[in-house]
Amino acid sequence: MAALIRSVFVKNRGLWLPGLSAVRAMSSEPTPPFSTLSVSHPAIAVTHVELCRPAKRNAMNQAFWSEMVDCFSQIALDSECRVVVVSGAGKLFTAGIDLMDMAAHVLQPEGDDVARMSWNMRRIVTKYQETFSIIEKCPKPVVVAVHGACVGGGVDLITACDIRLCTQDAWFQVKEVDIGLAADVGTLQRLPKVIGSRSLVNELALTARKMYSDEAKSCGLVSRVFADKEAMMCGALELAGEIAARSPVAVQGTKINLLYSRDHSVSEGLDYMATWNMSMLQTQDLVKSAQAAMERKSPKDVPFSKL
Amino acid sequence: MAALIRSVFVKNRGLWLPGLSAVRAMSSEPTPPFSTLSVSHPAIAVTHVELCRPAKRNAMNQAFWSEMVDCFSQIALDSECRVVVVSGAGKLFTAGIDLMDMAAHVLQPEGDDVARMSWNMRRIVTKYQETFSIIEKCPKPVVVAVHGACVGGGVDLITACDIRLCTQDAWFQVKEVDIGLAADVGTLQRLPKVIGSRSLVNELALTARKMYSDEAKSCGLVSRVFADKEAMMCGALELAGEIAARSPVAVQGTKINLLYSRDHSVSEGLDYMATWNMSMLQTQDLVKSAQAAMERKSPKDVPFSKL
Amino acid sequence: MAALIRSVFVKNRGLWLPGLSAVRAMSSEPTPPFSTLSVSHPAIAVTHVELCRPAKRNAMNQAFWSEMVDCFSQIALDSECRVVVVSGAGKLFTAGIDLMDMAAHVLQPEGDDVARMSWNMRRIVTKYQETFSIIEKCPKPVVVAVHGACVGGGVDLITACDIRLCTQDAWFQVKEVDIGLAADVGTLQRLPKVIGSRSLVNELALTARKMYSDEAKSCGLVSRVFADKEAMMCGALELAGEIAARSPVAVQGTKINLLYSRDHSVSEGLDYMATWNMSMLQTQDLVKSAQAAMERKSPKDVPFSKL
Amino acid sequence: MAALIRSVFVKNRGLWLPGLSAVRAMSSEPTPPFSTLSVSHPAIAVTHVELCRPAKRNAMNQAFWSEMVDCFSQIALDSECRVVVVSGAGKLFTAGIDLMDMAAHVLQPEGDDVARMSWNMRRIVTKYQETFSIIEKCPKPVVVAVHGACVGGGVDLITACDIRLCTQDAWFQVKEVDIGLAADVGTLQRLPKVIGSRSLVNELALTARKMYSDEAKSCGLVSRVFADKEAMMCGALELAGEIAARSPVAVQGTKINLLYSRDHSVSEGLDYMATWNMSMLQTQDLVKSAQAAMERKSPKDVPFSKL
Amino acid sequence: MAALIRSVFVKNRGLWLPGLSAVRAMSSEPTPPFSTLSVSHPAIAVTHVELCRPAKRNAMNQAFWSEMVDCFSQIALDSECRVVVVSGAGKLFTAGIDLMDMAAHVLQPEGDDVARMSWNMRRIVTKYQETFSIIEKCPKPVVVAVHGACVGGGVDLITACDIRLCTQDAWFQVKEVDIGLAADVGTLQRLPKVIGSRSLVNELALTARKMYSDEAKSCGLVSRVFADKEAMMCGALELAGEIAARSPVAVQGTKINLLYSRDHSVSEGLDYMATWNMSMLQTQDLVKSAQAAMERKSPKDVPFSKL
Amino acid sequence: MAALIRSVFVKNRGLWLPGLSAVRAMSSEPTPPFSTLSVSHPAIAVTHVELCRPAKRNAMNQAFWSEMVDCFSQIALDSECRVVVVSGAGKLFTAGIDLMDMAAHVLQPEGDDVARMSWNMRRIVTKYQETFSIIEKCPKPVVVAVHGACVGGGVDLITACDIRLCTQDAWFQVKEVDIGLAADVGTLQRLPKVIGSRSLVNELALTARKMYSDEAKSCGLVSRVFADKEAMMCGALELAGEIAARSPVAVQGTKINLLYSRDHSVSEGLDYMATWNMSMLQTQDLVKSAQAAMERKSPKDVPFSKL
Repeated sequence: MAALIRSVFVKNRGLWLPGLSAVRAMSSEPTPPFSTLSVSHPAIAVTHVELCRPAKRNAMNQAFWSEMVDCFSQIALDSECRVVVVSGAGKLFTAGIDLMDMAAHVLQPEGDDVARMSWNMRRIVTKYQETFSIIEKCPKPVVVAVHGACVGGGVDLITACDIRLCTQDAWFQVKEVDIGLAADVGTLQRLPKVIGSRSLVNELALTARKMYSDEAKSCGLVSRVFADKEAMMCGALELAGEIAARSPVAVQGTKINLLYSRDHSVSEGLDYMATWNMSMLQTQDLVKSAQAAMERKSPKDVPFSKL
Repeated sequence: MAALIRSVFVKNRGLWLPGLSAVRAMSSEPTPPFSTLSVSHPAIAVTHVELCRPAKRNAMNQAFWSEMVDCFSQIALDSECRVVVVSGAGKLFTAGIDLMDMAAHVLQPEGDDVARMSWNMRRIVTKYQETFSIIEKCPKPVVVAVHGACVGGGVDLITACDIRLCTQDAWFQVKEVDIGLAADVGTLQRLPKVIGSRSLVNELALTARKMYSDEAKSCGLVSRVFADKEAMMCGALELAGEIAARSPVAVQGTKINLLYSRDHSVSEGLDYMATWNMSMLQTQDLVKSAQAAMERKSPKDVPFSKL
Repeated sequence: MAALIRSVFVKNRGLWLPGLSAVRAMSSEPTPPFSTLSVSHPAIAVTHVELCRPAKRNAMNQAFWSEMVDCFSQIALDSECRVVVVSGAGKLFTAGIDLMDMAAHVLQPEGDDVARMSWNMRRIVTKYQETFSIIEKCPKPVVVAVHGACVGGGVDLITACDIRLCTQDAWFQVKEVDIGLAADVGTLQRLPKVIGSRSLVNELALTARKMYSDEAKSCGLVSRVFADKEAMMCGALELAGEIAARSPVAVQGTKINLLYSRDHSVSEGLDYMATWNMSMLQTQDLVKSAQAAMERKSPKDVPFSKL
Repeated sequence: MAALIRSVFVKNRGLWLPGLSAVRAMSSEPTPPFSTLSVSHPAIAVTHVELCRPAKRNAMNQAFWSEMVDCFSQIALDSECRVVVVSGAGKLFTAGIDLMDMAAHVLQPEGDDVARMSWNMRRIVTKYQETFSIIEKCPKPVVVAVHGACVGGGVDLITACDIRLCTQDAWFQVKEVDIGLAADVGTLQRLPKVIGSRSLVNELALTARKMYSDEAKSCGLVSRVFADKEAMMCGALELAGEIAARSPVAVQGTKINLLYSRDHSVSEGLDYMATWNMSMLQTQDLVKSAQAAMERKSPKDVPFSKL
Repeated sequence: MAALIRSVFVKNRGLWLPGLSAVRAMSSEPTPPFSTLSVSHPAIAVTHVELCRPAKRNAMNQAFWSEMVDCFSQIALDSECRVVVVSGAGKLFTAGIDLMDMAAHVLQPEGDDVARMSWNMRRIVTKYQETFSIIEKCPKPVVVAVHGACVGGGVDLITACDIRLCTQDAWFQVKEVDIGLAADVGTLQRLPKVIGSRSLVNELALTARKMYSDEAKSCGLVSRVFADKEAMMCGALELAGEIAARSPVAVQGTKINLLYSRDHSVSEGLDYMATWNMSMLQTQDLVKSAQAAMERKSPKDVPFSKL
Repeated sequence: MAALIRSVFVKNRGLWLPGLSAVRAMSSEPTPPFSTLSVSHPAIAVTHVELCRPAKRNAMNQAFWSEMVDCFSQIALDSECRVVVVSGAGKLFTAGIDLMDMAAHVLQPEGDDVARMSWNMRRIVTKYQETFSIIEKCPKPVVVAVHGACVGGGVDLITACDIRLCTQDAWFQVKEVDIGLAADVGTLQRLPKVIGSRSLVNELALTARKMYSDEAKSCGLVSRVFADKEAMMCGALELAGEIAARSPVAVQGTKINLLYSRDHSVSEGLDYMATWNMSMLQTQDLVKSAQAAMERKSPKDVPFSKL
């Protein structure tokens, strides 16, 4: 994967911020202490998080659930990072939950009676929900690039990301009813707010049928479909580059307020926005950007301070 | 209609749960005490509710409004039923409200002054709203199959269902402004949450123009369009079969939480979901389904207890 | 522009209400005291508001922000008006905010310290938000017709309208991140509730890329695309005519309840609707319309009282 | 009890509406088909519901839970009734849930696994919640008069009433933690909205300690304390008479909007109120009352139509 | 009244900010163009608004409703003003709505049918609601001082204020049910959020009984009771002086966030607060105040910039 | 302090659960790694957290804010603990924020422009808010016992606890406006939901005046006042013992649902409660408790499993 990313980066180097010179090391192996994720920095201000258990079809084992939290907590605080790309190593994005690894844990909650087992089960589910909510809480936009299968927990994951891309061969499956449960780490909450047709959401969640890339595009789950993984990664990095080139004050404020708006009325959202921008408009980025706009320069030619 | 359903069932018998043998009687005539609905059981765990006043274009008269409530209240408690299909008898789905039958009732509310007439009018409207809300409150998924016209009250009805299918010749019309009122039994509340384009919702509701099946598909009102009624009923039963074959704990929990999510923020939805699943994961269905999945068996080969 | 509108009106005169005869004067020049808007009455019960600073690409200067409030406040109270059409004069819809005119005002809020500057900045943002919220508060439906560019503040404006139309050459750009700020006068709050794909909303808002008319149609931002401006204005007036021909009690109640539904749960929306209609069903419009419907007459042949 | 009520009525007959003459029959025995409630009509427009299993300390058995729903559903539709008084027969108000009668039912929900037993348990709890919610849904104000013990389910009941009175010897106990459960039919939801001190609410609910009448008065749980039951019933009927004497349009609209306000923001409440009163102000009651006020007559001298 | 205020000011001059010298003119007559209000400036940074139609018992006529809006809109923008005191001229606070003046207006809404009359009635009610909401929208704290009667609209008014004081002879009456309507300009929405006992709120609103000052104090409607009007005005001005002496950034931010909290969950309130204070903590007032606190100086000795 | 606690424990040992024998070690010195808190276990299932910087009047320094989070996170997971008591070491409860220690941190946020400083300030405030929110998130009830002064941050802290007690000499002060800021770590959000009089809340927050124990009791801030600290600690432990003696399933479910109810409508709260109890009623605690109740035994004689 690292080679592919590098080649994309070379081909698209024109995208990157000219005013910045130091590039962080680009790792291609799982970064210690992560055993399920590989984190690299393919370009200035871009962090790439790769689901990286290809031998297990990137299935989500116990380690994965806590590593994601650690990984995105670090990213949230990394002032060098302005945008994140998430993708999967190997032949597909993810096969979802690793049933073998998780079964004992989830199927046998501790407790002396039903109430106590339920209490512990709730704690477990809440913890797993946090794994994907952490993506939303991270103020940097997250672009997710899906190739091949995206099953079960994979759909929970991508609906917590901000922009979804996929390859022509990608397919998506809300798998949970097939294994006897209602999806409980985000799909039922976020998917209906991500795509426009409730009839389709219901059909997907109630029948566990596969949805292929064409339908994913037409229903709005993904905003773009690419011919193959190389093209998609190139597109994802280009898109990430566009975002990274803009004022982080503007970009991260945009993400935070878009999420706020999703869960509030329009008038509540406007009030919050005004309270947000009363200070966020007092930024040099606005002056620099406005000046660049008047001079018809690209935002990419404007150097911004870290955030 | 009964003949058609039976032929569909015969053609598709491969769909049904092999482990179950007793099939409930299949009625094709309006079930007493219903004068406007025909209720049958075309397959194991599937209930078919047919709007059945074909001579009156399935127009909604006074009896209809209370029979729907009775019918779906029974279904909600029928542990044999796991999924419902709704369709219309005759040449079209429904012409909407039966103006002749309803006019006296609605146009002349009782009361000694405007306040008292308003009070009674509110009671009437609230009662009619309940007729379609009962579909949402029923925890079993409801698939609606529309052919020909679906007008006025018909749109209120289908937006309260979970999955919408239609034939190529189907058309939809939010008719209310044409008769001088704002739609008040569900369309204005549910349609904007069912399809993705608010511009289109507004246009439909403000102009009462007809929308045909192609646009209904592209905007997401329906998730599939079929060539004709026979194909649609076949598809509807196949879809119903897919749902009926899965764990009722998983399926009904999915419906309840999808509806909860529609009306709450993501974090509220997640909290409710975790509280829901703390007990609902303690089901034999999960064990059976997970085992079947590992053995690469279909969910249809797994027998589940009633719910 | 006036000539075009007149020609459209002449071509489509069959659309207008036959029972009404008095046509208000059709102005084509900016109505005093408006320097940025031209208000005319191209047909019975239809008000046309034209962004009218073509030499400045209809950019939004300081005068614009308060004139919009005055204009729509007048329209809200004008019982002759039943529907509004908004469009732009000249070569494009609007270039968005007039940076030159606004910069001093926004970039230099008064105040002795950061808190006081923030306080004043919040007052300014809140005032600008009101400029577009006034469109929503106006109970008459607003149809907006976009040709050419619709940039920045233009997107804020059109998302506050009820129905969006555009020409084949139209394009839309959420421009704010390019000038270093998070959009704060409505786009981030309304766009996600206007179109169905959140992935697309995020991409547009985070990258400031242009979206062309085809994509605007397929994602649901606009409900119709026309070949050119003349065709669009004809279509807009025809659509406005359809709305104007119907009961204003029904139409305005529909707008108010659709907006209420957007920001509330379905059950809250139903309760409000029942409380609304307990009096609004006590209208002669219902009797007249129902009678016309039974007689198979068009709503356009029914004269309604003013509202 | 009937004798006491009658004596109160005789002493206070000056309270009752002079314009009305027909008094409905005053029953003092449990009205068929009620085995746990006694319903009577001690004065014009006043309905008295008495918990009436004195030999069992008015404990709530299975019959009680459904009889309350039937009883208040009838009252809601009884246009003769303008206000309700609830009290308990015998030595105390109620000992709460009848553990003996309920245990089998609640402790042994049906179901093949935990999920199915939970599903059925939820159905049971929801049904019991409805027993007290029905009091809120009844638009007529409900005055509850408590003497002696009010334990467990009794607190759930009284917090759903509108006005609470008690005798000097009354005491209240949120008993549920003592029997190993969190109170689930209303106390935890309504008590914190009924009294002002959250510290006290928490203490009562977490320790199950008794609260006596003095503290109940000072914390606002009850609005008045009477020396003994006779004085209290006299006071309750006098209070009920005050309410019954006023315009039912005003009174019932007041109850509905007070409840709406409890659960909404002030601006939401104001919007609903304006929408409510746009028709409810169009009442003859307003004209009659305003005229009486100008003539310095009492509301009791004004005859109002039924509602 | 002016004489009284001046004497209070003289007696309490020690209260006022020593660093400020210019005192605005103290008017004692109704300020043009107000016919129902008298506005004066009894001390630095304090504005006194007096209901001033003593011959009519300060009853609220048509002029009053719009003058209040004008008055408080001016105050909101007056950077010299940091706190407002509201009281009534003459023998009592206010007799409430001026029935004679308002009757024609409210009892006879225009409109050709019930729907249209309702539409216009809603516009009127909404406008009157705004008269008191404007007090909440004004970011400066409003202290209201009540003597004698406070009836009907008076209760709507005072519940929209921030701090309530009264004299020993004061009494309060939610009068609306007595004139045949549900209170619709704020009492039913705000009173339950102002005092702690819902039983009492319901009793007051449903029976229109008078509440005297002792009960008003014990239930929390007022926070202090004074022997007579002179003592109360002295206390009100002292209290206003305490508020005026503190940082306007701190004080007005406190009011805004207290109101926000009233209508939101705790976690929503905390989020808003953090977003508010991210800029509001960047004030010189914090530095000045912290320094004064460390030097054990009073806030009154700290000069703050205008806001 | 440890000696006092021990003496209280000895005097009240009759309170503790007889079925349990192992008492955890009782520490009286600050537990490593806490420098500001002392954690001990004065009785079975009771954890005592003492603010312990008496030489600095228990002022809240930087260490305090993170130690509280660690401390309560541990408690939340400690299945031995069923209830928490919080108090202050030395002469008073707490002087609030340690201005000297915090000033540099808060007054000088990092960042290259106002927007970036605001961004960092928001992060700081959010972190400090979490310090007290962690008390609410802990499912075990928290009893707080206040003696002497409780100033500024102290009020934020106690409003996040479940039950408040104080000594006769206690006083409370919402100090923030005195140092130039709006209270931002909980007081403005929680205090209005803790006590019943909004007039009083506003007065306290806007003037920073002290409130003494009598008023704290009458307004409901505390539920009990004790003569001195020894009596209060005895009372606090007795109260804690009452809670610890009851089913932890019942007690912790009660806390969670009381908090849920505070921030939701009654019907939302009831729905959540039913979903909660569908599993939580399936506990042996209910059987044991019901049996004990029928046998007229105290809950304290019932041994419950850990939770």
